[in-house]
Amino acid sequence: MLTDALCATHIPGIADIHAAADRLRPYALRTPLLESLLLNDRLGGRLLIKAEPLQRTGSFKFRGAFNRLSLIPAERRAGGVVAFSSGNHAQGVAAAARMLGMPAVIIMPDDAPAMKIANTRAYGGEVVLFNRVTESREAIGARIAAERGATLVKPYDDAGVIAGQGTIGLEIADSCAEQGICPDAVVVNVSGGGMAAGITIALAETLPSCQIITSEPAGFDDTARSLQSGRHERNDKASGSICDALMAATPGDLTLPVLLDAKAQGVSADDMTVKRAIHTAWQDFKLVVEPGGAVGLAAILSGKVPITGRTVIAVASGGNIDADLFRDCLALPPL
Amino acid sequence: MLTDALCATHIPGIADIHAAADRLRPYALRTPLLESLLLNDRLGGRLLIKAEPLQRTGSFKFRGAFNRLSLIPAERRAGGVVAFSSGNHAQGVAAAARMLGMPAVIIMPDDAPAMKIANTRAYGGEVVLFNRVTESREAIGARIAAERGATLVKPYDDAGVIAGQGTIGLEIADSCAEQGICPDAVVVNVSGGGMAAGITIALAETLPSCQIITSEPAGFDDTARSLQSGRHERNDKASGSICDALMAATPGDLTLPVLLDAKAQGVSADDMTVKRAIHTAWQDFKLVVEPGGAVGLAAILSGKVPITGRTVIAVASGGNIDADLFRDCLALPPL
Repeated sequence: MLTDALCATHIPGIADIHAAADRLRPYALRTPLLESLLLNDRLGGRLLIKAEPLQRTGSFKFRGAFNRLSLIPAERRAGGVVAFSSGNHAQGVAAAARMLGMPAVIIMPDDAPAMKIANTRAYGGEVVLFNRVTESREAIGARIAAERGATLVKPYDDAGVIAGQGTIGLEIADSCAEQGICPDAVVVNVSGGGMAAGITIALAETLPSCQIITSEPAGFDDTARSLQSGRHERNDKASGSICDALMAATPGDLTLPVLLDAKAQGVSADDMTVKRAIHTAWQDFKLVVEPGGAVGLAAILSGKVPITGRTVIAVASGGNIDADLFRDCLALPPL
Repeated sequence: MLTDALCATHIPGIADIHAAADRLRPYALRTPLLESLLLNDRLGGRLLIKAEPLQRTGSFKFRGAFNRLSLIPAERRAGGVVAFSSGNHAQGVAAAARMLGMPAVIIMPDDAPAMKIANTRAYGGEVVLFNRVTESREAIGARIAAERGATLVKPYDDAGVIAGQGTIGLEIADSCAEQGICPDAVVVNVSGGGMAAGITIALAETLPSCQIITSEPAGFDDTARSLQSGRHERNDKASGSICDALMAATPGDLTLPVLLDAKAQGVSADDMTVKRAIHTAWQDFKLVVEPGGAVGLAAILSGKVPITGRTVIAVASGGNIDADLFRDCLALPPL
């Protein structure tokens, strides 16, 4: 069974994900699988949305953060935690730390959405801003961890985090069993791949015939290229997409092997398609989705993932978006 | 047990609501109870939102419509159904009729939101438009029912509809039991009062200490005044609020006695407060709520319902709003 010491090097198993689900049950929301009859008509297939914007802190990241923090031994909790994040992991760690009575320092890029920075502070996190292009968040995180005796909570290369995100997969399988649904594919937005790896491990046991598809912003498709080449490929840019949550330069060391083993395939969508998909999610699912949370939906709606006559699940991973950008999306036609 | 013939005159009991829940289980979504830690901090209390915009057709109305249509005997189903509605009951009836293989004629005001009219047609409903001020929707409905041998499905003065809406109350009680929550009050948006009556009957059995509060648009507070006087009071205007879903002139004959018996109290909110509450629901719950669905939330956020140190549940009843109006709401500050 997973321990604090194993988190940095271990790939979690299904038992670790079930243990995470037990830990999360009193604290996290079991998010619904949403469906629009009218959108299904237009697509000629069946599309279901796992609604993680409704999760505590507005994204799936709360799951992994809470599970990981729960594994920190009692004697190290006073030192607190430190995390680097563009915003959703930040909020997840800050909220989980507050619930567990631990201090949290969060290192955030200075171009993160204002709402994400404000909310991280509101959850009680101490925010340290850095420049995404000229500074290394990993170096800043390691320094603060050493200075304060804090535990560094990585956003994806950590078995406790991956196991927490994997609870999304268990819930998808449960909802499908309850509703008699047998999905052909699950589309998961990826940055470092913690959520995609966790869901892949969970579905391998519960829905083994379901294809895993990763979705990324166009021009930042390091995971799609890594899945094709079989090794870690990197993005050549560090910024320039509206999908602020999906800016990791390359897949994680723990996550890529899981995705390669599952023969996952990668798709992408450009900013304009993502904006229009945000409008569609607003219109057809009554759900607020942020750009990084809508990439998979955008890829499906723009024909990158076959859906005619099929059943496809898209994980809408978060909903933390600034109001001005959201208004811009509603001014565009839905997809 | 409730039958088609009893629906026009009967007040449903808890057994009728349980029967409705059984009928709805394979078709309706069990909507989540949402909570925002940051909003709770700001309020100094605990606010939970029953998220009916996520329900099939974007509002709670699907519940009552599907349950009522299920009670129509086989020999009368070919004649179909006819309903009058500003849009949410319309979509609920059209979608339920399609699922049950029945034709549906929907009589809608010509000033209903474009999305509601378009969606009613997309679900397969035949839409007949009327003028809200100069024509009687009841008369048009009765005429079409007679001509076609169709069953008239009233929006609230019907025991089958009330029982269907009451399933919201059962789900609220279940969610509260799972999470160990004991709510002080439930705030329910009212027009004719079908949802409020159904929830009241359900909670009387499951959460008997919970206060029932009805919420209405300012200037259209016929229910609040009726609850004070003990008899049917009427609105003196038939239009002029952005809350298009809450325009019934007076409470229902079946619904008001239920609310009076429960000693329900009424509150209201003006259009500007409702718009800002829509922004809050977008920001803190990642949920799209229409004006009529946000009145209760608006009343709570503007201090009309005490929440400091208390636990209050607001039913967000629907999310069918046009994009231009939603953009206007996001341009205002949240409440």
